[in-house]
Amino acid sequence: MKRKLRMGMVGGGLTSFIGPVHRKAAGIDGEIELVCGAFSIHPKESIETGQALYLNPKRVYNTYQEMFEAEKGLPADQRMDFVSVVTPNHVHFGPSKLALESGFHVLVEKPIAFSLDEAKTLQKIVGKTGLILGLTHTYTGYPLVKEARQMVATGKLGKIRKVFVEYPQGWLSTLLEGTGNMQASWRTDPKQSGMGGAIGDIGTHAANLAEYITGQKITEVCAMLNAVVKGRMLDDDASMLIKFENGASGVLIATQVAAGEENNLNIRVYGEKGGLEWRQQDPNTMFVRWLDRPMEVIRTGQPYLSNEAKAFIRTPAGHPEGYLEAFANIYRAFSRAVRDFKPGKKINAAKYDFPDVEDGVRGMNFVQTVVKSASSSRKWTTLK
Amino acid sequence: MKRKLRMGMVGGGLTSFIGPVHRKAAGIDGEIELVCGAFSIHPKESIETGQALYLNPKRVYNTYQEMFEAEKGLPADQRMDFVSVVTPNHVHFGPSKLALESGFHVLVEKPIAFSLDEAKTLQKIVGKTGLILGLTHTYTGYPLVKEARQMVATGKLGKIRKVFVEYPQGWLSTLLEGTGNMQASWRTDPKQSGMGGAIGDIGTHAANLAEYITGQKITEVCAMLNAVVKGRMLDDDASMLIKFENGASGVLIATQVAAGEENNLNIRVYGEKGGLEWRQQDPNTMFVRWLDRPMEVIRTGQPYLSNEAKAFIRTPAGHPEGYLEAFANIYRAFSRAVRDFKPGKKINAAKYDFPDVEDGVRGMNFVQTVVKSASSSRKWTTLK
Amino acid sequence: MKRKLRMGMVGGGLTSFIGPVHRKAAGIDGEIELVCGAFSIHPKESIETGQALYLNPKRVYNTYQEMFEAEKGLPADQRMDFVSVVTPNHVHFGPSKLALESGFHVLVEKPIAFSLDEAKTLQKIVGKTGLILGLTHTYTGYPLVKEARQMVATGKLGKIRKVFVEYPQGWLSTLLEGTGNMQASWRTDPKQSGMGGAIGDIGTHAANLAEYITGQKITEVCAMLNAVVKGRMLDDDASMLIKFENGASGVLIATQVAAGEENNLNIRVYGEKGGLEWRQQDPNTMFVRWLDRPMEVIRTGQPYLSNEAKAFIRTPAGHPEGYLEAFANIYRAFSRAVRDFKPGKKINAAKYDFPDVEDGVRGMNFVQTVVKSASSSRKWTTLK
Amino acid sequence: MKRKLRMGMVGGGLTSFIGPVHRKAAGIDGEIELVCGAFSIHPKESIETGQALYLNPKRVYNTYQEMFEAEKGLPADQRMDFVSVVTPNHVHFGPSKLALESGFHVLVEKPIAFSLDEAKTLQKIVGKTGLILGLTHTYTGYPLVKEARQMVATGKLGKIRKVFVEYPQGWLSTLLEGTGNMQASWRTDPKQSGMGGAIGDIGTHAANLAEYITGQKITEVCAMLNAVVKGRMLDDDASMLIKFENGASGVLIATQVAAGEENNLNIRVYGEKGGLEWRQQDPNTMFVRWLDRPMEVIRTGQPYLSNEAKAFIRTPAGHPEGYLEAFANIYRAFSRAVRDFKPGKKINAAKYDFPDVEDGVRGMNFVQTVVKSASSSRKWTTLK
Repeated sequence: MKRKLRMGMVGGGLTSFIGPVHRKAAGIDGEIELVCGAFSIHPKESIETGQALYLNPKRVYNTYQEMFEAEKGLPADQRMDFVSVVTPNHVHFGPSKLALESGFHVLVEKPIAFSLDEAKTLQKIVGKTGLILGLTHTYTGYPLVKEARQMVATGKLGKIRKVFVEYPQGWLSTLLEGTGNMQASWRTDPKQSGMGGAIGDIGTHAANLAEYITGQKITEVCAMLNAVVKGRMLDDDASMLIKFENGASGVLIATQVAAGEENNLNIRVYGEKGGLEWRQQDPNTMFVRWLDRPMEVIRTGQPYLSNEAKAFIRTPAGHPEGYLEAFANIYRAFSRAVRDFKPGKKINAAKYDFPDVEDGVRGMNFVQTVVKSASSSRKWTTLK
Repeated sequence: MKRKLRMGMVGGGLTSFIGPVHRKAAGIDGEIELVCGAFSIHPKESIETGQALYLNPKRVYNTYQEMFEAEKGLPADQRMDFVSVVTPNHVHFGPSKLALESGFHVLVEKPIAFSLDEAKTLQKIVGKTGLILGLTHTYTGYPLVKEARQMVATGKLGKIRKVFVEYPQGWLSTLLEGTGNMQASWRTDPKQSGMGGAIGDIGTHAANLAEYITGQKITEVCAMLNAVVKGRMLDDDASMLIKFENGASGVLIATQVAAGEENNLNIRVYGEKGGLEWRQQDPNTMFVRWLDRPMEVIRTGQPYLSNEAKAFIRTPAGHPEGYLEAFANIYRAFSRAVRDFKPGKKINAAKYDFPDVEDGVRGMNFVQTVVKSASSSRKWTTLK
Repeated sequence: MKRKLRMGMVGGGLTSFIGPVHRKAAGIDGEIELVCGAFSIHPKESIETGQALYLNPKRVYNTYQEMFEAEKGLPADQRMDFVSVVTPNHVHFGPSKLALESGFHVLVEKPIAFSLDEAKTLQKIVGKTGLILGLTHTYTGYPLVKEARQMVATGKLGKIRKVFVEYPQGWLSTLLEGTGNMQASWRTDPKQSGMGGAIGDIGTHAANLAEYITGQKITEVCAMLNAVVKGRMLDDDASMLIKFENGASGVLIATQVAAGEENNLNIRVYGEKGGLEWRQQDPNTMFVRWLDRPMEVIRTGQPYLSNEAKAFIRTPAGHPEGYLEAFANIYRAFSRAVRDFKPGKKINAAKYDFPDVEDGVRGMNFVQTVVKSASSSRKWTTLK
Repeated sequence: MKRKLRMGMVGGGLTSFIGPVHRKAAGIDGEIELVCGAFSIHPKESIETGQALYLNPKRVYNTYQEMFEAEKGLPADQRMDFVSVVTPNHVHFGPSKLALESGFHVLVEKPIAFSLDEAKTLQKIVGKTGLILGLTHTYTGYPLVKEARQMVATGKLGKIRKVFVEYPQGWLSTLLEGTGNMQASWRTDPKQSGMGGAIGDIGTHAANLAEYITGQKITEVCAMLNAVVKGRMLDDDASMLIKFENGASGVLIATQVAAGEENNLNIRVYGEKGGLEWRQQDPNTMFVRWLDRPMEVIRTGQPYLSNEAKAFIRTPAGHPEGYLEAFANIYRAFSRAVRDFKPGKKINAAKYDFPDVEDGVRGMNFVQTVVKSASSSRKWTTLK
């Protein structure tokens, strides 16, 4: 395909946090151009956003339904190829479903949907249409996360025994939703966010990261969920003991009331021979400890990295890559798949290395199981 | 008392790890002199140890019973003042009990005894005799741990909400006890170590640290204990969800199979206004995060520290203090109490700031409760 | 201007290092589109590059002369607005000069030219045409570098006394140019690189950073230049004592034979009241030490930053920004100036906060003075 | 010698900084006992110090002359073996000389004397008497400094090319000597401190560290000395370019006006194959970078260290050793030599690994040469 991919967007108006992130991430590699959007449920904001993005006003729509209908009707050399869905959680399902049914690939912000049922519905549609649904579990886009996964997969650490994954934030330490803060308001509202607060917003990232790196599924959880801040309607704090299918065990923490923490996702994985540690806030450095020799410091951009990691690196060692580049790596992998897409041929997301509808279903399943465990007096709850 | 305190020692022969640590810690401040010892159950090793320490051969004894008996008979200007008990866990109780009954103060290596019952027996004897029993929970001896405790106590962090305390080590990642390693052998043997492996050896340090800094007792635990290495007789890995009396909650991890970890005890405590982080391997630095201003880096030796911390500092900022100095701080506080001791007057350990028999009982209680929780299918077990 | 800016490019073929960096940086914010290029002196490579970038083949040119001529002739709604010059050093001057003379703004990779004379020629042309020439001294694009500059400018550190700036790399520790490595070959060749090796390639970044943050010019240097690796034709190692106009002094180090170092540009600036430290490899963290209170850790994305820094931030705290974002900040500031440009009205680069032709002349002057100092037996050489 | 070594002390009264440091360092290993002292020029302070240290009042002297005379007369089984001289700089020479002439070994605080001439006089007396003179260049006492020296000596880094050594402090950022501060007053007074301020106080440590690790002598210096704080009588800030005998070059910085810095001695040494970095404030960690593989993190207490480093380690990895332990290592090595001493047999300090009279002469020579260079308009001054 000797042209840029054409992207549409649902959500992501001027006041959005994640919309601009998607657009910048899509723009870095010069492989994608934004051609249309339905940026807001407020038509005025959608129009203003389209103007600010220098879009053709004819392709700025009032609703996603309108957009899919109109784009379907455009000639093949203009029509969008895929749509990015960047609305609040409770509006992930609708546009994603309709886009797939309208013949468009979808890249949807995490979580994939509002409930496990919705997620499974999308899974079915993907299965039926053969179209590609990508999910922006951003943090697995970092090159050193891919290196970590390779280290485990190639047995360098031996059999994995322990996994400690944490996602501490502090921004919800006060009742921010009571001050009109938009990001806080929808995230703490069960009607917009779903049954999980912190556990859905960031806990799923932690679980996804742990499973991605270890290649092992979490099979049991023993969870405690708290709404620490008075007046909050959803959990803002989660901790749990976890077990993995290979017999490993560990701890998962996701909290938004760790006062002063920024976005400190981090993971440690220990095997029989050594252990690795990676921290999202210093993403170009990974520590690898060994039983019998000095700790090594693995760095993004170095020639000694695996090919799987190198495929997602843009600059030489010492030129730090950040969050937008990790995000762009999801777009990079997803767009490679879209370019390779042929009707009737199943795309294997793992080969391209991006999170897909299976990860979306997995995430919803995780949230539902953790919420169930938290309200149970039994120690362990099975995660299927 | 215008003289050095006179110390005796039980255990701590030439091949011991912790014996020399105690002796060095006792020697730093020039307030204590070692005058006698029963260093080993092997009389020959005891004699050789005494020689290596330049002791008067007459005061090197074959058994602690013999030592206490002989020392009791010495004139007041020669007799030892207190005894350090540095034997393996199952031999803490006997010498401590007999020393107290013989009229000597005791500084005993942690854990205080082999079982909760033994600990309570010591508690009673201390109550009856009024003598001083100190316990070397070394890590609370670090100046910045004392600063952390002060920060919480004075409300700088606001009400405490979350506590994450970890003690990862990696040295038991293999079946070291199968190779004749002495340290590994007794620590993994239920007959010498007690009902807890990692949970007793290092988990108690973690619990003690958390309670010391927060000033809050742990009231409930939900624990998972594992013997990860095949053939091991005791747990080498512990994780648990915990709740505190003030409503705070958190996670406690203690593992000896985190391959490549050294002695990485660390704690994070978050309150309404901010959070602190301290790591034993970099003990002169503490990070304090705030909701609304830059993170601060607190450092040992700085003039801005509290008097409670300053009382345990030996060198100016930038001249690192280490493990032996922390250990020496237990000796410093304990020996101040011994100097102030008067028969019939109760010594308040908290005032001198050293762990005492109450901490010892608490520790044994913790281990017993965690072991109980680990084998229960109920989520929460109460810690009294 | 309700459209994207249109960018052309000279150099930056498929094997280039810096070309893709410029293109990605230009693409992040969605404000610029690449419309044309003369990517190589090899027409075939230029064509292939144009194809890979999905350019209109008609706007992929064999030479920059051809490109400027053709673009001049295009209608205003198609014609490029500015050109990025990303060729090796000795080909910076020609395209930049011709572009300006053809009426195009220029963003040129550092150093601005091959010699001080060339730089001054460009300075004159800019003066005459009123057009904008930006220079990609990337490292001043980092938000925390801007914060550092603000801290000094607002007197928070007091009068500046000491400046230590270093740029250690290790990639030229061997005679890489003898192995056919393209990046090494032109950088160590006086005919392509100019009179300075390491001092020109990276030393100028260090000097620029020091002057940018302190707001003080370097007035005297006492330099040592070495060609450490046998057979190398230019210096690969520079150290110098420096003095600033306000009486401050310091040290500047730039070396490419610090084996194992990546791209470790860093600076420390100490004033009467405190000091700051920033390291490019961890660019979202700045340490600020104070005389009488705890060190603070300043972080990108935090609300407490100055407006001057905030103007160049894309993501919230804890979502790391990297080298490409810093690079994009040069493009951001430059493109804002281009959008504001009106013939006859002088653009003030400082207001937009991007390096311009004055910085280019300053850099060439610096290199020339250092080379002179290095060969002198006198201690100090004046930098005008 | 089946007894503790007997130490006397000159200086080190109750208000001294370094006196207690020496006493604690001497006390850690249980190999030395303090038996006598002349602690102050004020007899009352000397007496009080002796009491506080529980010394026999008969062996607390008014003057060092009196002490040496009296101790000489004591029977061999009581007499002190060596004396620690811990007075201000200008009183190092007198007691050291007389002690040697009285037949006592000497451990003298750095710098060895007030002038190069005095140092050379001591050198001669040592040569004549065969007695041992040790010098507390504390920082080479750290185990990882010894490991660094071994890494260089065994060629692991290849031929050494670059050395960057720094010693930034901030405590003299204000005119502290104007406030009555005792430590500041004598250190900034040419009559008590000598011809060098910062360069003598801390610059010599930096030079000693660089030569110790590299095994190479500094042969040329190009120095800038500043008295940054108004009213100061000696330099408080030094920077210099340096060359080594093997052709390596580098930079040495020693400043006491780096506001907010504590005691941040650090060194980086780069060879053909790799480079090492060590920082005194985190002394149990050393970074080793390699040309072609991940950076390694070397840690005190690890089994993989060299025997030369292991000989100076007291605790297992993860149990941090600090400044007092490094100091104690000088005492450890010195006291081993004293135990091995036999009249007529020359002791080789290098074998025991402690700084001796040669290092003292070297240090004075360094200060004198730097002061000369700083006032010269020639770039390079030879250091013999």
